[in-house]
Parts: sequence; C-alpha cells; structure tokens
Amino acid sequence: MPTNKQIHLDNRPAGEASASNFKLVTAETPALQDGQVLVRHHFMSLDPYMRGRMNDSKSYAAPQPLGQVMQGGTVGEVVESKSDKYKVGDKVVGFGGWQEYSVVNADQVGALRKVDTTHVPLSHYLGAVGMPGVTAWYGLVKIIQPKAGQTVVVSAASGAVGSAFGALAKARDLRVVGIAGGEDKCKYVTDDLGFDACIDYKAHRDVGALSKALKAACLDGISGYFENVGGVVMDAVMTRMNAFGRIALCGMIAGYDGKPVPMSFPQLLLTNRMTLEGFIVSEHMEVWPEALTELGMLVGTGKLRPRESVAQGIEAAPEAFLGLLKGRNFGKQLVKLI
Amino acid sequence: MPTNKQIHLDNRPAGEASASNFKLVTAETPALQDGQVLVRHHFMSLDPYMRGRMNDSKSYAAPQPLGQVMQGGTVGEVVESKSDKYKVGDKVVGFGGWQEYSVVNADQVGALRKVDTTHVPLSHYLGAVGMPGVTAWYGLVKIIQPKAGQTVVVSAASGAVGSAFGALAKARDLRVVGIAGGEDKCKYVTDDLGFDACIDYKAHRDVGALSKALKAACLDGISGYFENVGGVVMDAVMTRMNAFGRIALCGMIAGYDGKPVPMSFPQLLLTNRMTLEGFIVSEHMEVWPEALTELGMLVGTGKLRPRESVAQGIEAAPEAFLGLLKGRNFGKQLVKLI
Repeated sequence: MPTNKQIHLDNRPAGEASASNFKLVTAETPALQDGQVLVRHHFMSLDPYMRGRMNDSKSYAAPQPLGQVMQGGTVGEVVESKSDKYKVGDKVVGFGGWQEYSVVNADQVGALRKVDTTHVPLSHYLGAVGMPGVTAWYGLVKIIQPKAGQTVVVSAASGAVGSAFGALAKARDLRVVGIAGGEDKCKYVTDDLGFDACIDYKAHRDVGALSKALKAACLDGISGYFENVGGVVMDAVMTRMNAFGRIALCGMIAGYDGKPVPMSFPQLLLTNRMTLEGFIVSEHMEVWPEALTELGMLVGTGKLRPRESVAQGIEAAPEAFLGLLKGRNFGKQLVKLI
Repeated sequence: MPTNKQIHLDNRPAGEASASNFKLVTAETPALQDGQVLVRHHFMSLDPYMRGRMNDSKSYAAPQPLGQVMQGGTVGEVVESKSDKYKVGDKVVGFGGWQEYSVVNADQVGALRKVDTTHVPLSHYLGAVGMPGVTAWYGLVKIIQPKAGQTVVVSAASGAVGSAFGALAKARDLRVVGIAGGEDKCKYVTDDLGFDACIDYKAHRDVGALSKALKAACLDGISGYFENVGGVVMDAVMTRMNAFGRIALCGMIAGYDGKPVPMSFPQLLLTNRMTLEGFIVSEHMEVWPEALTELGMLVGTGKLRPRESVAQGIEAAPEAFLGLLKGRNFGKQLVKLI
C-alpha cells in the first residue's frame, strides 16, 4: 500500500490561525475490506468554513477533532476497489480530507459520487459544480428569490461562491454587482465573469466610501445580497438595501479569527423590513441535484468560467489555507496532489 | 365649534428627543363638510415608533412633518356627524393625532372604525386590541411560527406589545419568557400576564449576566424571539437562540435616540442558521381581522389583562412620550383627554 501524507489539526488557534496549528503526518494506507475503495486525491478543497471548525465552540458542525486529519472535500480517482459500485479509474468527488489517499466505504450514502469529466474538469466539482456552486444557488434561488430586473450584490465575488452567484444571476436577467479586493479581481469579475459592475473594497476603506460606490453602481438600490464576508462590507451594503430586501448569510470570514465583528446598523433591518437568513448548504441536500444540473450546464457551455488558485503538494495546504482567510487567493482555492 | 388643543412637532431632535421639540398650539375646529364627522378623542396613544418618525431620515414612513399635529392613534366618540355612516355617540378608533378633536372624512377607507365597548374598554383598542396587539400577533404567528412546547422570548414584556405576545403565546401552549426593567414589572409579567418567567434586565447589566439568566430560564434554548428594544438585550438573547431560531424584529428603541446601536454577534445568525425579519404591521392589513378577533376574545375572557400608564391632559403628552422612550411607562402608554 502507498504511504499517505496527511495534515492534522494539532492544536486550536488562540485568535488568528497560524501554520503551527497544523502538523504533517505520514501514515500507511490500510488494506481494503470488502465494500471499500481506495481513492487517490487529485485535488483537495480549501474553504473558509474550515476556520470556524478549528475553534472548539458551538456551531453548526462539531469542531474539527484534534490530532486527526483535517476534514474537507476532495476529488480523485479510484485506484483500488473491493466494491461492485466503483471500478479502478472512476473519477469521484468525496470528503476525503487533507491527505493524499482515503479509504471509503462505498455503501455509505453520500460518501462518494461518480462524476463525468467530459465537459467539466475534475477540479470544478470542488467549486462551481460542487459545494460552493450549490451554496450560491441556494442563497440566490431559495433565500433571495429575486425578480427579473432587480439588482443583487455578492461579496467575495471573484471566489468560488461569488463567481457561481454571478452566472446564476445573469441567467435570471438580474443586474449583478460584485465586491472584491483589488483591481485585478474586479477586472476579472466584470470581464470574465460577466458581472455588470464590481467594486474594489480595498479602494474604499470605510463604510461611507463603500456605500457611495455602491450607490453609483446600484441606481435602483439593492434587492438581494449574498454575504460571504461580514464586517464593513456588510455594513455598507445594508445602507443601500431596498425595502423588503433579502440577505442570504453564508459566511462571516471577517469574524472567523478571534473576536466577532459587529453589525453596525441593525436598525436598517427594521426600517427597511429586511429578511436575513443564515444557512448551511449541507442541510439542504434536496436542492443539490437541481442546482448541480444548472451549474454543470453553465460551466459546460462556457457561461461560467471559474478561476482557480492552485497550491502544489499537501505540504502547501496550511499556508494556502491561511492565505485564503486573508483573501490572497484568486478564485477557488485548491491543493493539487498529483 | 370647540377649541382644539394640539401638540405640533416644532423642530427635530439632535440626538436625544426633548420636550422642546414639541409645541402646544390652540386651534379652532373647522365647520364640517358633507361626509365628515367630528371626533372628540378620549385617549391618544403614545408609541415608540413615533420617535423614529421625528427624524428626517429614510425610514418606512415619511417623517412626521414639522409644524403639524403629531400623528398617532386615537379612540373617541363622534360628537357631530355629517355622514350616514356614523352617528353622534359612536365609539371609534382612528388616527387622529396629538389633539383633542379631529375632523374625519367618513368615506376614507380605514380612517375610522366603529368599536364595541361592551366587553373591551375603549382604551384597549389602542393597545391589546389595536395596533400593538396585532403587532404581537403578526410577529408570533407569521414570523416566529412556533410549534407547541417551544420557548419564545419577548423584550419589553410588560408593554402593550409584550403583554399581548405573552397571552398569544400561552394560547398556543408555548413556554414564554419575558424581559422587562425592574422587579415590579417582572412580577406583573409573571403574576398578572401569566408568563412562565421574566428576567429583570436592570439586574443583569451586561450581555454575559443577561445571557446566564436567560440560560437558567430557557433550559431548552430559545426558538423564537420578538425584539422590541435592540442593543444589549438583543445581543444576550441571540447567544441563547437554538438552531433555526426565528427573530421578529419590531422595534429598536435602544437606537432611536441619535447613534445606532450595533449588533454584537451577527455571526450567530450564521452559525445557528437563524432567520431575522423586520416588519411593520401596517403593511400587513390582511391579518388584522383575524388577529383582532383573537385579541378581543383574550381580553373579553380575562386571559389578557393589559395594564395602562395614563397621563392626564394633552399638555402631559410630550413628557409621557419621553418617559416611554426611557421605559418609565408601565404597560401601554396613553394620554387621557376627557
């Protein structure tokens, strides 16, 4: 059996996460039992939600256990099979974690899903045609529930969720405005992703400046907002929301590290009779087939061209993850293992 | 025609509202035109929402105009009629404002409603069986949507909205916990209003202490919250909300005076997948008949015994209103004019 390099969570961050929270471990892959398959991971996914799980606090998921492989999504290839359901060579998406190989019980519902790479590159099943894409779909379709012609806004627009959100919004005849950090990202959001406008939050450092920029980009106000970051960006968008505006709250990356970031103007939720809903896409499995079908079509037809930031080799995972939390990635953050 | 004492909004508050924002004016009541009635107000209603309208800022309603009668709900008696729809002696509820008399076009839809005072005292049509009661009903029934056995919490529990919320919650077999300021109010909330528990926020001055008190009173956590105040109280309740908890946001009294009060832990909306909805009951007229029927029944059968703070004479209105904003009232704040 091959050796298997893994990244474990060694200790929990006090405040900001750092590389010293992680530990590289080399393990043997165990011999397969009947019904099991061995998957060699081609890519593993790094996602902001993982930061929340590094804390030992009440949240939607149990905390990431200490001394165990960091959990997370993976795509790869079946390299050995003792199951009728999968054969060697099958491309699969799963939840293999931060390691080079995983042993999976093929009978466990939802543990593996075979994917077709004819029109969609394998890595995109961790992004646009995977969890981040379905996240964007759920927030837009089920929470924001927009009407054609309305203006919707998404933060972290150049990322995996944001880019999918943009394509889904354009497919529904919405005006979609992104918020991203830096000129390069903003140019990508408008030129490659087809957003109607994109605001560089690094060029508008406070709520007032950002709010003014949003006003100029959203002449009819904002009907729906997909929130990935929280903090100043959320405050500014809230100042431009229309009456009965709807906010899908998916991420609070600004608050993951240590102390919570307050919401500055909660009274706007009242005066504008807004609805705000926090959600976790894994609790809405019923929408995945419909969402993945649409997302696969958008990627297959070139209407959604997601960008990826790819770190090389498992040893690079901790630094790539910390960079993601700082917004240093440009598009979906992956680690390539093969 | 009788003279008519009125309170006008003379100037807008800079920061905290004060008596100098208002001006007492004596006017003549004009002669009636065909289709009009003259109503003598017995009681006028003072409500926290009026503070928001004193500002010249974007909100759900146009600001209260300067130099005009303060707008607000009234109950009274028709004393002169040039309309077939009302006769002298009819008891009516309307929106007559801070004055002793109002001239009303009887044909205007929604301007006046005849009420029956056999089982419900006239003043209650400004409280439990009026706008505050329907507000409680909408937040509980339409936004919180509770299931029997769940725990719901309301702030400003001894007030007009809070007391109605308690009775409506008990009628649905919920555990209902109030938050109020001071021992007397808390005793009234549990002993007279039938709440299961009441927490004195004045005895728990910070979020930590209030959160601990809520934990003890809500052993199964909090499924629904009706928010009347905002600020520290809202922060503390949010720390005890269950997954998929629902918040009806009706008032932010803590933020009406001058600077907005932030929400300290917005990330809880995400980690607990909460839904928060701001609303204004006047935008949901379709529920009023159903809500008023239930509320009238609860009052008529003694299951809801709302308390009133009654100021005497129109001259007392500004100070009574300012006291309401400080929580000095005990129950529904009214001004008795006759």
